[in-house]
Amino acid sequence: MFLALDMVEKARSGHPGTPMGAADLAFTLWDRLLKHNPRDTQWADRDRFVLSPGHASALLYSLLYLTGYDLSLDDLRNFRQWGSKTPGHPEYGRTPGVMATTGPLGQGFANGIGMAIAERFLSEHFNRPGHEIINHFTYAIVSDGDMQEGVTSEAASLAGTLRLGKVIYIYDSNHIQIEGSTSIAFSENVARRFEAYGWQVIGPIEGTDTEAIYEALRRGQKETEKPSLIICKTIIGHCTPIEGTAKVHSDPLTELQTDEAKDTCHWPESNFYVPEDVLVYMRKAVERGETAEREWNERFEQYERAYPDLAKRFRTQFSGGFPPDWDTGLSDLFNTQTSPIATRDAGGTVLNTLVQRLHGLTGGSADLAPSTKTFLVGYGNFGWREHNGHNIHFGVREHAMGAIAGGMALHGGVIPYTATFLTFSDYMRPPMRLAAMMKIRVIYIFTHDSIGLGEDGPTHQPVEQLMGLRSVPNLTVIRPADAAETTEAWREAMLNKDGPTALVFSRQKLPILNRAECAPAKGVMRGAYTLWQSGNGAPEVILIGTGSEVHVALDAGKRLAAENVNVRVLSMPSWEIFDKQPSDYRESVLPSSIRARVAVEAGIRVGWEHYVGLDGAVVGLDRFGASAPGEVLFKKFGIDADHVVAAAKDLIRKQMVN
Amino acid sequence: MFLALDMVEKARSGHPGTPMGAADLAFTLWDRLLKHNPRDTQWADRDRFVLSPGHASALLYSLLYLTGYDLSLDDLRNFRQWGSKTPGHPEYGRTPGVMATTGPLGQGFANGIGMAIAERFLSEHFNRPGHEIINHFTYAIVSDGDMQEGVTSEAASLAGTLRLGKVIYIYDSNHIQIEGSTSIAFSENVARRFEAYGWQVIGPIEGTDTEAIYEALRRGQKETEKPSLIICKTIIGHCTPIEGTAKVHSDPLTELQTDEAKDTCHWPESNFYVPEDVLVYMRKAVERGETAEREWNERFEQYERAYPDLAKRFRTQFSGGFPPDWDTGLSDLFNTQTSPIATRDAGGTVLNTLVQRLHGLTGGSADLAPSTKTFLVGYGNFGWREHNGHNIHFGVREHAMGAIAGGMALHGGVIPYTATFLTFSDYMRPPMRLAAMMKIRVIYIFTHDSIGLGEDGPTHQPVEQLMGLRSVPNLTVIRPADAAETTEAWREAMLNKDGPTALVFSRQKLPILNRAECAPAKGVMRGAYTLWQSGNGAPEVILIGTGSEVHVALDAGKRLAAENVNVRVLSMPSWEIFDKQPSDYRESVLPSSIRARVAVEAGIRVGWEHYVGLDGAVVGLDRFGASAPGEVLFKKFGIDADHVVAAAKDLIRKQMVN
Repeated sequence: MFLALDMVEKARSGHPGTPMGAADLAFTLWDRLLKHNPRDTQWADRDRFVLSPGHASALLYSLLYLTGYDLSLDDLRNFRQWGSKTPGHPEYGRTPGVMATTGPLGQGFANGIGMAIAERFLSEHFNRPGHEIINHFTYAIVSDGDMQEGVTSEAASLAGTLRLGKVIYIYDSNHIQIEGSTSIAFSENVARRFEAYGWQVIGPIEGTDTEAIYEALRRGQKETEKPSLIICKTIIGHCTPIEGTAKVHSDPLTELQTDEAKDTCHWPESNFYVPEDVLVYMRKAVERGETAEREWNERFEQYERAYPDLAKRFRTQFSGGFPPDWDTGLSDLFNTQTSPIATRDAGGTVLNTLVQRLHGLTGGSADLAPSTKTFLVGYGNFGWREHNGHNIHFGVREHAMGAIAGGMALHGGVIPYTATFLTFSDYMRPPMRLAAMMKIRVIYIFTHDSIGLGEDGPTHQPVEQLMGLRSVPNLTVIRPADAAETTEAWREAMLNKDGPTALVFSRQKLPILNRAECAPAKGVMRGAYTLWQSGNGAPEVILIGTGSEVHVALDAGKRLAAENVNVRVLSMPSWEIFDKQPSDYRESVLPSSIRARVAVEAGIRVGWEHYVGLDGAVVGLDRFGASAPGEVLFKKFGIDADHVVAAAKDLIRKQMVN
Repeated sequence: MFLALDMVEKARSGHPGTPMGAADLAFTLWDRLLKHNPRDTQWADRDRFVLSPGHASALLYSLLYLTGYDLSLDDLRNFRQWGSKTPGHPEYGRTPGVMATTGPLGQGFANGIGMAIAERFLSEHFNRPGHEIINHFTYAIVSDGDMQEGVTSEAASLAGTLRLGKVIYIYDSNHIQIEGSTSIAFSENVARRFEAYGWQVIGPIEGTDTEAIYEALRRGQKETEKPSLIICKTIIGHCTPIEGTAKVHSDPLTELQTDEAKDTCHWPESNFYVPEDVLVYMRKAVERGETAEREWNERFEQYERAYPDLAKRFRTQFSGGFPPDWDTGLSDLFNTQTSPIATRDAGGTVLNTLVQRLHGLTGGSADLAPSTKTFLVGYGNFGWREHNGHNIHFGVREHAMGAIAGGMALHGGVIPYTATFLTFSDYMRPPMRLAAMMKIRVIYIFTHDSIGLGEDGPTHQPVEQLMGLRSVPNLTVIRPADAAETTEAWREAMLNKDGPTALVFSRQKLPILNRAECAPAKGVMRGAYTLWQSGNGAPEVILIGTGSEVHVALDAGKRLAAENVNVRVLSMPSWEIFDKQPSDYRESVLPSSIRARVAVEAGIRVGWEHYVGLDGAVVGLDRFGASAPGEVLFKKFGIDADHVVAAAKDLIRKQMVN
């Protein structure tokens, strides 16, 4: 633990308290129970471990170093510095052995629940009698702060309902938070609360009593019907002169204090000192890990001989890849569709087609499956009574849903999706942000994507959410215009393995764009494409629509064409994809010389200047919605072809004046 | 309850289930216990009532109509129609007697806790022996869906810690949610969970047993040390042919089904029928209410005679107004400050100055008061042991903090503020959105506002949050550049009574802008202002900065001036305020003819085209941050004067070419 202390002191920045308090817990778990191979951080059946209070990262880095992961003492010395492997909070993909980016409290707790869901899902799908290919625990250290976050409550309640017996969490209960003692804000009985959720609660035990910790962890392993919470009483900043205070939570110790702490524990004062015998002892983790994985590999070979198809599928799913035929015929799904259909309905059809080929596709909705059309028909419920089900009932818990889906993606072997109304994307921004940061494949389905949902009114009508999602780096937002674009949007989402995708669908029916006169929907893969143009050569005006407003733009375009305007209509389902296209493509679609541009979208206007600039126009909103039938609202708010035509004419007129 | 059914059927849209199931509960409360005056919806000491499952709005409208609020049968017939007083979900400010906009689940639950906090705060501050000026209950009906949301857990835990004895919530437990039985997603023991939070749990009782409901409510009133949760078992869509099913949750009944339901209950089939004797009976609420308020007025007059100053302050606070001297000398706070100071520190100083004049100012932080500098020194803790304290310790519960602050504002008499890091604004978007929709004054303080926070890394560094907040209609975002602008930002926040304000402050120290050479900080009130210009007349290039990047823009401006460029530097703390200025002011600051514009902000670039258009440049980010010292990050990410100068020169060169 003094490694952690030295790290924080060296960086003059960081959180020394929790690493010192929770060292014994973490050490006991890592030394005696954790199934892992420091030489292979991708082993499918390793135990998963999440450090939910990410500010205690120094503890995790110390453990990774000591047990032989690809991390050196120099890496530890570089704590919290530019480009180092040891950033302030654990970052997935940056440090070997870090299984989740944590820091924003509560997220790691829920990520772990997602990992355990993926574990159960995969064990149900792949294990066969005598062949336990997937069978591991998910451990986490969680803190007082985690316990106060709502996302933790949501995830814990769901974990209890699903009886996720392989979840074993250690609650580092030190009764200190930044503002002082937890009693000022947190006097609840956590044990009783978790019992109410259906968890096995063990303890409280002393956080320095390694035998008690070991026994508690073993009890957690033995309880197969309930997740386990082990309550450990710890002392924040243990051994330091300021142990048990809020100050030690997030202020580095002085050199003097660090030395004093080392004296207290009879530890040499030299920095980053690890006795040779300790290192030798801890590094045995490598041999143990390699042996364990080798045994697993042998078992997998037997499995492969007995179930070659399953084994192949297992490998494909864990590689994140697809079977070769995964999208055969996908683009033809709506070939015969002529009557208007809501993109949520189209999306449901695509999803149900995909799951027949992609067996790792699993997810669900925050109690809105019938409305979001995301139920996988014939694929059963994921629960504790049923087996092999794909449909997860998240309950009215958008936040945990997002974080759980992130945890599932982190586990690997599955392609998670979530679903709710677009307006409730607000509830799940923290986990979406982390998924984007971690560059993991999660698919967020958001339906009821505008005032078009009608009577439920402004609380349910998204207005600012589209722009809000577009502002998140590395999150791809796609809002298709009709059924055919919906198919292509889904394809893009599946192919986007380097980050999450938000699919944005309408509640209301949308006309099928006539592809005989319009460009094919596969233009979705470029983010934006010329859907239709009335004349040849450079257009006088460019109309840009997304989703349910593309047909509005097209109507407007035809009316302008009837008045002999050379007009181009773009369908722009995805800003992010379009902005990534080569500049010549972007220039061909949206020539920089043509400034008469009108964007139409049933969302807030501000932000569209990204494409229409200061000389264009935006037909959109700058207010919240209202309760009335959807078609009335489009009229009242002026989001219709009339207004697009008027705006276009206005721009053309202004250009003539100039 | 058949009124509600008729409303849903007439609109062919809405949620008939809960109004039918919860009718007896609501009726009992409203008829026998609720202290309210249908003729004065602003009476300070009325009981507060929140219908957290806002989709049951038809029930609330029926009660408001029956008890004599300003709502007619025609209003009920206009359910969910454009411009009506009876929108799909209750909307504060639209319907007399609706005390909170609800719909997004969990928010109403937490709003109620905020109302009860305001009640206790005001009772502690204003009541005197023999003079109970503020003493009322806060009631809510809450649903299965509310119980699953994390924000509810957070608020419930805090309410237990604070021992808010005047909270009485009725839990309409119908075991049905949209996807089916709650058991698929929600098997926890709610009673035990709330006991763990420190609540009195009563029941379960039968939701049709009005005597049991009455007794339970009375027990809730008598328990003064704990909030009360009354668990009522109800049957969703009670009396209808599809009672107890998920279908009745959100699908209108057919006319036939409605008639059948009426038959079951021996109710005439005619629509919107209310028997005269029922109406006469229910309308007695008016007389009772007027009597109660009259008595209160008499008591208030006695109070006023005994404590004229307090009474005056009471009136001022409830009117939302200020004492005349509230901002005297405020602008001089930092007159002698010359050394750099973080705007979070400056903000803390202003806040502590304001509270000395504005006694209704109360709030706190999500366990980050020492970091956000929002502790009101000498003003005590708000808790159950202490009295007259102003500092609320929200715990690590950003979401509930936001919703509770909203509830406090809805209650009236207080000016609530919240504080956390800007990146965690993501956790509280749902309540911020509702506050913006309700146009209530809540002040959100967000510190650690960019990569400038340094080592904590990308999880803690906001990047997209500024743009995300700017996209919310009716939310004013202000990011001041130095201590003087911080003062003006606070003034704007206080004066903005028609919506919430987000104050965005730096962690790192910022230089004090030299106002001898720069324009005065009161320019903040225009949203953006010309801070400095090197020459006269139209500038060749305009540099725009916000917050910690204003001094970067100014440095760049001076370097350009040294090269004989006529450059103007704008400080633009608030887009929303600037966009509301008259067009001649906007034109004077940002002339439409000058297109060489460079914006600099340590946040994402996309969106800034709103001001710089397609021909300008943005010095900003399009990625997440990283863990390293803040000054290193600004360098590595190129957010510095070098890059602003280069971008400006590039634009000037391009203009010359054209």
